[in-house]
Amino acid sequence: MTDPRFHHRTGPYSLARIAEASECVLADERTTSQECHDVAALQDAGAGHLSFLDNPKYRDVFKISKAAACIVSAEAAVDAPKGMALLISKNPYRSYALAATLFYPLPMGDGIVSRLAHIDPTASIGTGCSIAAGVVIEANTRIADGVRIGANSVIGVGVEIGAGTWIGANVSLTHCIIGQKARIHAGVRIGQDGFGFALGPKGHLPVPQLGRVLIEDFVNIGANTTIDRGAGPDTVIGTGAVIDNLVQIAHNVRIGRGVVIAAQTGISGSTVIDDFAVLGGQVGVAGHLHIGKGARLAAQSGVTKDVPAGEDWVGFPAAPRREYWKEVALLKKLLSKTKS
Amino acid sequence: MTDPRFHHRTGPYSLARIAEASECVLADERTTSQECHDVAALQDAGAGHLSFLDNPKYRDVFKISKAAACIVSAEAAVDAPKGMALLISKNPYRSYALAATLFYPLPMGDGIVSRLAHIDPTASIGTGCSIAAGVVIEANTRIADGVRIGANSVIGVGVEIGAGTWIGANVSLTHCIIGQKARIHAGVRIGQDGFGFALGPKGHLPVPQLGRVLIEDFVNIGANTTIDRGAGPDTVIGTGAVIDNLVQIAHNVRIGRGVVIAAQTGISGSTVIDDFAVLGGQVGVAGHLHIGKGARLAAQSGVTKDVPAGEDWVGFPAAPRREYWKEVALLKKLLSKTKS
Amino acid sequence: MTDPRFHHRTGPYSLARIAEASECVLADERTTSQECHDVAALQDAGAGHLSFLDNPKYRDVFKISKAAACIVSAEAAVDAPKGMALLISKNPYRSYALAATLFYPLPMGDGIVSRLAHIDPTASIGTGCSIAAGVVIEANTRIADGVRIGANSVIGVGVEIGAGTWIGANVSLTHCIIGQKARIHAGVRIGQDGFGFALGPKGHLPVPQLGRVLIEDFVNIGANTTIDRGAGPDTVIGTGAVIDNLVQIAHNVRIGRGVVIAAQTGISGSTVIDDFAVLGGQVGVAGHLHIGKGARLAAQSGVTKDVPAGEDWVGFPAAPRREYWKEVALLKKLLSKTKS
Repeated sequence: MTDPRFHHRTGPYSLARIAEASECVLADERTTSQECHDVAALQDAGAGHLSFLDNPKYRDVFKISKAAACIVSAEAAVDAPKGMALLISKNPYRSYALAATLFYPLPMGDGIVSRLAHIDPTASIGTGCSIAAGVVIEANTRIADGVRIGANSVIGVGVEIGAGTWIGANVSLTHCIIGQKARIHAGVRIGQDGFGFALGPKGHLPVPQLGRVLIEDFVNIGANTTIDRGAGPDTVIGTGAVIDNLVQIAHNVRIGRGVVIAAQTGISGSTVIDDFAVLGGQVGVAGHLHIGKGARLAAQSGVTKDVPAGEDWVGFPAAPRREYWKEVALLKKLLSKTKS
Repeated sequence: MTDPRFHHRTGPYSLARIAEASECVLADERTTSQECHDVAALQDAGAGHLSFLDNPKYRDVFKISKAAACIVSAEAAVDAPKGMALLISKNPYRSYALAATLFYPLPMGDGIVSRLAHIDPTASIGTGCSIAAGVVIEANTRIADGVRIGANSVIGVGVEIGAGTWIGANVSLTHCIIGQKARIHAGVRIGQDGFGFALGPKGHLPVPQLGRVLIEDFVNIGANTTIDRGAGPDTVIGTGAVIDNLVQIAHNVRIGRGVVIAAQTGISGSTVIDDFAVLGGQVGVAGHLHIGKGARLAAQSGVTKDVPAGEDWVGFPAAPRREYWKEVALLKKLLSKTKS
Repeated sequence: MTDPRFHHRTGPYSLARIAEASECVLADERTTSQECHDVAALQDAGAGHLSFLDNPKYRDVFKISKAAACIVSAEAAVDAPKGMALLISKNPYRSYALAATLFYPLPMGDGIVSRLAHIDPTASIGTGCSIAAGVVIEANTRIADGVRIGANSVIGVGVEIGAGTWIGANVSLTHCIIGQKARIHAGVRIGQDGFGFALGPKGHLPVPQLGRVLIEDFVNIGANTTIDRGAGPDTVIGTGAVIDNLVQIAHNVRIGRGVVIAAQTGISGSTVIDDFAVLGGQVGVAGHLHIGKGARLAAQSGVTKDVPAGEDWVGFPAAPRREYWKEVALLKKLLSKTKS
């Protein structure tokens, strides 16, 4: 189903191997050596295909799917069509991610340092790195083993990149330390000056931005996202945080572990987003705030005060979700009366 | 009027030639061989200049304009100052676009493949292509005839680009098929991983993104816009869609023919925008929605449900325009009473 | 405190020298020859460190700070701990900016034109320019003295750049004239086509964009910001305007002197932002509007009409701040009654 020009498939794999890789248990021992050669969506899958059911909405599609094998919860398994091999999972979407990664491992690069890359002689490059044409690596950088850097990216003076990190094309890194196994997509800008000026009626004076950006391990950063370096303290992106495209992270911001930030969201200076908070798209968070652990901010929220841990907020100015929607409903009622 | 360092003017042209190119009829046959050498706005135009009147607001400016010739509707023509040659059009703005394109053809490039471009030997490059310095073209790409690629752009493995497509500087293309006569401006990112993760309390697992991006013919994509590839299905941008700067298009989105999307708008995963819909700037559309044919979404709308074909929606959560503004007015009234 | 891999510190400096550079007066003549070797925040500062107190919130931290010297207002000076040398300023944050710039001058580049830059023979390059590897400078450009251009940036045909301007990595400039001492961060796109189309039911026709972008002196432009060239008139960014990351400036927009625009804000076509107006993040301003001198637009505002000089507006549709918040409070009251 996938286009072989773009996606390199491995396999086929036995169901035993797939189950092991994807944290599943086979429903029927007799299917152990049955093989699958690809993954596919329920409605598209056929002979030799592995599929999955996660969203209950697709239960009817599941019932008539022609997939040879399917990852499914124990509860949903009862609806399986006859002849379908079942891999039982407590978390079918996670299991699918693992199985799909077995067939299509995350690309790492070809292990070649292009002779068309421009690498300063003082740079230290680890073993097994893939550095594409047009990459510029400036003085005193330290690139660990197995790093992949896409074409025409620029790694500024003194930058450090941890082992196994993957960097797309046309990326600019400066004043930053990147951890291991991070994924930084095309066009990302990390480490440029924060937006700090002493404003004045005759002109604005730039305030030297004397910090760095620290990107911890396993972080994902989407295309054309910008992360400014700190004004004095560092800007920090915590382990395993996943950040979408066109997001703005201002100076001194601290993003906790496992935080999720959807596209086009902006975090103003010195704000702290605590671990595993989830921010929808186009959210704006004002400066010097604290968003508590596991808090959830709905898309387009405009957050002007601290959000306690675990709460769901929405709207502008953002308020707790239940309160917000209750007020919206109440208002609708009030207005409908006014009409009559 | 235009700066010759940046804009290459052709001509002069006779009014007969201009009328033919711009779908106009000359009001007076005797002006057939009169020549214009440039276009200009009504208030700036003088001898030898062609202008146009589209917006009725400018009727007074039209009445005293010194333009030698003007594109105008039959109705408005009556207000023309004496001595002005008139080109009558059913759609003066469209006619102006055609006439201006006659004087200033869309730039296509110099037909030179720079020896400073890095082109993989397995790439296939058509005739008449312009490929600037620092461009990186990776393995197994297929570039059709007359394509222009700006400096330091990166064309990833296996990408296909149709004939006559124009690509700006510092663009990154990967996992995508681009149609003919598309225009892709500087800093655009197409085909990177969609934002798909199996979220979990101990960390988020990337889900392999196994689709592509298909950009159909005549599409325009603005600077620094990002379009992610599909998770399984493809992300598709339909023929003649025009997309402004800094727009985010998530995985699996399908944009129909002739859709217009203004700057900084974001479309979440798997949403379908049907043909000729028009989205203002900074709109956010949630995932898995359907925006009907010809629907119009006002700037900054936050769309949380399907929008029927042909409707005008606005606000957060977005609602039909008439209903929204009626409620706003009603609320104003209610509040003014509360004050008293 | 700062990481020497990224920040090059000069000094040490005597307090007399620092006071002179930072528009301060020493509280005690006997400290004239005392030296500081770095700047630091009040809570981190120790021997040899210069700090500053601006925000009254930090007064308690000031009282127990171990900073050797501190920039402070005459009023706040009374709270200083014993033994701290004081530099009295009318504007401590501005003075800090000046002092920090003394220790850490804005980086300008190494004065080297890389032999890995691709410079067209018709380009004119001033003295003392720093042009990094992979930079592409096209025909007939004019680069004045002391300009710094970061790696893999592209300077298009005919572009002019004024003396002492600093340009980051992966920037694209076309159809524009840049003034002196501007700072243009990584990934900025200037001068591409404005978003102008003659819309039609069978397809949209691009309207030739025949203007330029003029960037005046001392302008700051943040990473991945996009500024389109004019359709006929020019797009203009006035002297000393400071623009943050991911901002969109459409064709024909005129930004006045000293305007401040925070991240992810978008200005639609032909709008004028008058001198020293301040726009928060994620603001949207519709087309053909006038935002008056010194007006302030709160973050996420959606501005649909002209804003008079000096006014504070907020919300969607944006309204004067006082009025807006009064209505919000009134509404809250009304709704709380409705509940009871």
